[in-house]
Amino acid sequence: MRPGIDVECREVGLRDGIQIQKVFFPTAGKIAWLTAEAAAGMPEIEVCSFVPPKLLPQFADAAEVVAAAKKVEGFRIAALSPNLRGAMDAFNAGVHKLNYVTSVSEEHNLANVRRTIDESIEDFKRIVALRNETAGSEKTILCAGLATALGCSIAGQVPVADVMKLAERFVDAGADEISVSDTVGYANPQQVKDMFTAVMGAFSKQVAVTAHFHDTRGLGLANVYAALETGCRHFDASLAGLGGCPFAPKATGNIVMDDLVFLLEGAGLKTGVDLDKLVEVRDIIAANLPDEPLNGMYAKAGAPKGFVPATQAA
Amino acid sequence: MRPGIDVECREVGLRDGIQIQKVFFPTAGKIAWLTAEAAAGMPEIEVCSFVPPKLLPQFADAAEVVAAAKKVEGFRIAALSPNLRGAMDAFNAGVHKLNYVTSVSEEHNLANVRRTIDESIEDFKRIVALRNETAGSEKTILCAGLATALGCSIAGQVPVADVMKLAERFVDAGADEISVSDTVGYANPQQVKDMFTAVMGAFSKQVAVTAHFHDTRGLGLANVYAALETGCRHFDASLAGLGGCPFAPKATGNIVMDDLVFLLEGAGLKTGVDLDKLVEVRDIIAANLPDEPLNGMYAKAGAPKGFVPATQAA
Repeated sequence: MRPGIDVECREVGLRDGIQIQKVFFPTAGKIAWLTAEAAAGMPEIEVCSFVPPKLLPQFADAAEVVAAAKKVEGFRIAALSPNLRGAMDAFNAGVHKLNYVTSVSEEHNLANVRRTIDESIEDFKRIVALRNETAGSEKTILCAGLATALGCSIAGQVPVADVMKLAERFVDAGADEISVSDTVGYANPQQVKDMFTAVMGAFSKQVAVTAHFHDTRGLGLANVYAALETGCRHFDASLAGLGGCPFAPKATGNIVMDDLVFLLEGAGLKTGVDLDKLVEVRDIIAANLPDEPLNGMYAKAGAPKGFVPATQAA
Repeated sequence: MRPGIDVECREVGLRDGIQIQKVFFPTAGKIAWLTAEAAAGMPEIEVCSFVPPKLLPQFADAAEVVAAAKKVEGFRIAALSPNLRGAMDAFNAGVHKLNYVTSVSEEHNLANVRRTIDESIEDFKRIVALRNETAGSEKTILCAGLATALGCSIAGQVPVADVMKLAERFVDAGADEISVSDTVGYANPQQVKDMFTAVMGAFSKQVAVTAHFHDTRGLGLANVYAALETGCRHFDASLAGLGGCPFAPKATGNIVMDDLVFLLEGAGLKTGVDLDKLVEVRDIIAANLPDEPLNGMYAKAGAPKGFVPATQAA
């Protein structure tokens, strides 16, 4: 965690937010977005996914985007890869962090990455070895994302024990970070409290634990508060709530970054993000995706009278 | 609280939800709405406001709506009145509960009801006396709503001490219930935790304590969860999130009742409300206010696979 901040937000809009967009988000627009959001103080931005362009043409410019991101100072460049091949490309591009996703539900993992969970873990071990052997990538952070950890659109409820077991396997395999993901927006704050109490208790001393919530059923920020109360201090979100999952029908929308930062800053927790500057970055999304409705209540209503964000009060 | 339920939801859409609507919600539509929502299991519905029709023509049919509501069984009929005259009409109509609102912020009280806080309390004392003397109204519940308790669009921040002091004055004056209201949607869950810890600790053994949140800046349901964690078990909301405050610009939208019930039922708390039936009642609003956008994420996304509401699991 960057010195001087209490909670770390991670922008995932440039990956999770645009992966299901049929319109290609122009490379210059992606670079403008990450540059402006880094300038607003965002400590980590997932800038792309290293996947075959045939599968997701949205990320055909992944290497170019990372190259541009490396010229921008002050933030951690993250990228997603579903497999060893993509991880190799990501390491070669010079990302600071690699996100690798496996679903806790076997059915969802098969649908999402066409592998069993065992196969996903074997591939992750090869990625760990590659990271350790690749010159310049020794310090690249490896984050294991546990998708469908709070419910699955195919399997339904997902037991806490299954999440704990998969988290343990990834930590044992060498993950530096665990991301507990409500991929399809099923989570309830009481469930989040139970899940994060268990996960934080078992793993937070060894690895960073991130919460990845969607706002599909309106409970995304309630889930953030529940996770916060268990001590979680890392949260994914996307500016203006862009996002979804191609294999989870109607699971539209990561939690809204601007509303998340408003929640955290209002709770007295420093994010290091300038909320006014952050809201202005929405204009870059609007300019590049003119037909996409932007979510976010703070941007619409503005600051409460007399509101002083924790970062500015410091 | 009705036997067999853990948390009591209160529908305020027929009052708070429609008071700023320029379109008159037809009387038959109001009656259809309250009848259908009572049938879905809603334990309390605020059905109207007793105010001069010149001031708020939306409630010109208040007595007629209460008369119709009395023919519907199984729910508590609440109504709002800003003064003694309205309270008299409400008692004569036969409401089960009277809601009386005073702002914690002096400036907001002057703007909202054109009186000082001291004047508001004096009038409340006269309402208590009238209630005690009116045949058939002895058991009518008197609820003191503390508006702008979590921030004011005129005064800015509102100290916890001011809320505690006003709550104490109302309890001493004879209030049966206290409603802590985020009238303008300023509240943060950390602030709610602090405020409700104080209010619940001081008053919840003597009177019922209700939370009234707006979702103006996206934190409404996070605030619900924070209040729940302090032991609060009474929540106002409006179906499809209708609502606002005529004196608080942009303060649009009570929290969404359907999403609130989804949160509570998913947390294992019985509300007594049938969520499927509740969502169907939205159609009555849509039919009567065709130009009004309806809020609510649960209604759009549907239930998670395998979801069993606590009320149905019982």
